Amino acid sequence: MQDFDAASLALPGIRQLQPYQAGKPIEEVERELGIQNIVKLASNENPLGISHLVREALTQKISSLARYPDANGFYLKQALADKFGIAMNQITLGNGSNDVLELLARTYVTAEHEVIFAQHAFVVYPLVTKAIGAKPVAVPAKNYGHDLDAMLAAITPKTRMIFVANPNNPTGTFLTTAELQDFIAKVPRHVLVVLDEAYYEYVPERDRAPSLQWIEDYPNLVVTRTFSKAYGLAGLRAGYAVSHPQVADLMNRIRQPFNMNELALTAALAALQDDDFIQRSVQLNAEGMAQITTFCDAHGLPYIPSHGNFVTIEVGPKAAEIYQQLLQQGVIVRPIAGYELPNHLRVSIGLPEENAKFCAAMETLL
Amino acid sequence: MQDFDAASLALPGIRQLQPYQAGKPIEEVERELGIQNIVKLASNENPLGISHLVREALTQKISSLARYPDANGFYLKQALADKFGIAMNQITLGNGSNDVLELLARTYVTAEHEVIFAQHAFVVYPLVTKAIGAKPVAVPAKNYGHDLDAMLAAITPKTRMIFVANPNNPTGTFLTTAELQDFIAKVPRHVLVVLDEAYYEYVPERDRAPSLQWIEDYPNLVVTRTFSKAYGLAGLRAGYAVSHPQVADLMNRIRQPFNMNELALTAALAALQDDDFIQRSVQLNAEGMAQITTFCDAHGLPYIPSHGNFVTIEVGPKAAEIYQQLLQQGVIVRPIAGYELPNHLRVSIGLPEENAKFCAAMETLL
Repeated sequence: MQDFDAASLALPGIRQLQPYQAGKPIEEVERELGIQNIVKLASNENPLGISHLVREALTQKISSLARYPDANGFYLKQALADKFGIAMNQITLGNGSNDVLELLARTYVTAEHEVIFAQHAFVVYPLVTKAIGAKPVAVPAKNYGHDLDAMLAAITPKTRMIFVANPNNPTGTFLTTAELQDFIAKVPRHVLVVLDEAYYEYVPERDRAPSLQWIEDYPNLVVTRTFSKAYGLAGLRAGYAVSHPQVADLMNRIRQPFNMNELALTAALAALQDDDFIQRSVQLNAEGMAQITTFCDAHGLPYIPSHGNFVTIEVGPKAAEIYQQLLQQGVIVRPIAGYELPNHLRVSIGLPEENAKFCAAMETLL
Repeated sequence: MQDFDAASLALPGIRQLQPYQAGKPIEEVERELGIQNIVKLASNENPLGISHLVREALTQKISSLARYPDANGFYLKQALADKFGIAMNQITLGNGSNDVLELLARTYVTAEHEVIFAQHAFVVYPLVTKAIGAKPVAVPAKNYGHDLDAMLAAITPKTRMIFVANPNNPTGTFLTTAELQDFIAKVPRHVLVVLDEAYYEYVPERDRAPSLQWIEDYPNLVVTRTFSKAYGLAGLRAGYAVSHPQVADLMNRIRQPFNMNELALTAALAALQDDDFIQRSVQLNAEGMAQITTFCDAHGLPYIPSHGNFVTIEVGPKAAEIYQQLLQQGVIVRPIAGYELPNHLRVSIGLPEENAKFCAAMETLL
């Protein structure tokens, strides 16, 4: 292969970018370490798998895959609009919520702009910002969570977007409805507030902000959600943004027309019908959270109280080593040094026996 | 909903953009016209559907969809590398080839650059160019196809990318190996040549350019392919780019980590094993092409000789009307006024009975 300075032609922001580090897949650990019976608690996936309604819908759809998907996702948008009392033209569908986060940045942010997010927030926020060549502004966290006053203070005339994750990943911290609304009301209209509610379904109903209804009063608010967590469709890539119709219209102009594939559309539509599956998933998560935090309490391991389907545990300066040792014992968790948390490991809540395997492996390392 | 000037905040290029117009889905025609037994010959899909190997692989995989896909697509890249004699690090996987076309533009093109493509070429080329705010340069076609000399002459110091589709969609025109190689050799190294071979499998083997091997000599060449056409996976979204490893490395930095979903990875891997399915698809296409062009010849309808799985027929200034009348008779074809071909309709090659239904409906309109 000839030498070729491909980098000098690429955008400067991209030359400095590190690609996203995904949780280690089970197959990869099997391939590399040659061990079996692996438990993956690394990517905040739903340990219950998928709803039986999803399975049935997918099986029926397999025969028609040579056709392109509906580029407008009519039936899924209709179901979302009905469920949440919003209009279909407020919805932008995404190949996972990662896709709509990127679309938002690409629609509104240029190399001249600044984008604000919290320290320890989801790595996709700086990633989409840097890919455009815009300036990422990471505001220091307060108790591992968003410091909303400091984020407001960081707004300049160049600020075009603020990402807020609630609950936050990878720390699990949570902002109350009052805190959030107070914040959004203070953000100037020329700045889009992107409220990432990927873990929304795990929050008890009484604590959930009426975020979709807020858009009426705060047209610069965009709410993103996903089917990858509680709905159990991480493998299929399905997410969406709810916004002012004009924002949705603009995003849809650059959205890849078939960004959500046919099976993702089918599965998401079926998943929305199965409230019982969500209830069981949330219940299982609460029990697993208690199982792991009880273990941590008993062994004096500090952790960040979490409102998601994961808990971030402070294991000390040997976190990278402990991660490797857990891997050897067939337990995949998530090192988060890349989130400026080098002493922590993030552990997704699994099935009771998976959580037990993590606790047992952890116990041998203490 | 409050009034909100969402557009004034968006990128200027996006404000002027029209979203991609997809082929009309069967379900939409059923919903709108209340008719059944519809034949869709509008999106160059494989009328044979999917390989039985794909069906089996998908059915097995449905139970594990709550897990994220392998962000690196290890097994699919391995299979592609083996099949084509390339290295795994030359491959970038995409959510359809639309995704890799967009990734290429976003990696290399800024608002200061120019992007060259042919008149009547795939609408995604101007779309990804305008989304960035770069200048699209459409070079007038020659006999409905690429005028390569004129495209070379259009290169300026600001040119960063040239898209060439072979065969071209929606005209079906084809460049020979000698024409293509001569062109690529003349393009300066600071310009990336993106050779879109979405319809590659429909070209007889003796006529196919050894494009992947050319990358060794022309490191600024990128070849894109798709599983949406001959492989029959349009509904799943699977495509890829083959390039110099450095180009792939840069593209992968901004690729959404899970852009190809688990079932698309699974299906594409299975589809690659079924050469017999491709052979039958190509054979069926040749027969269907003869069926429709024979009809055209018999009725004095001019058409552009096509090397793809579609044929573009000149039906005259009433093309939009004829499109609607065909729709009423349950036949969906593709109006292509948006491609500066207002007197033509693009017809995908279907099953023999689907082609016959088109011919019969067309006959009533002549």
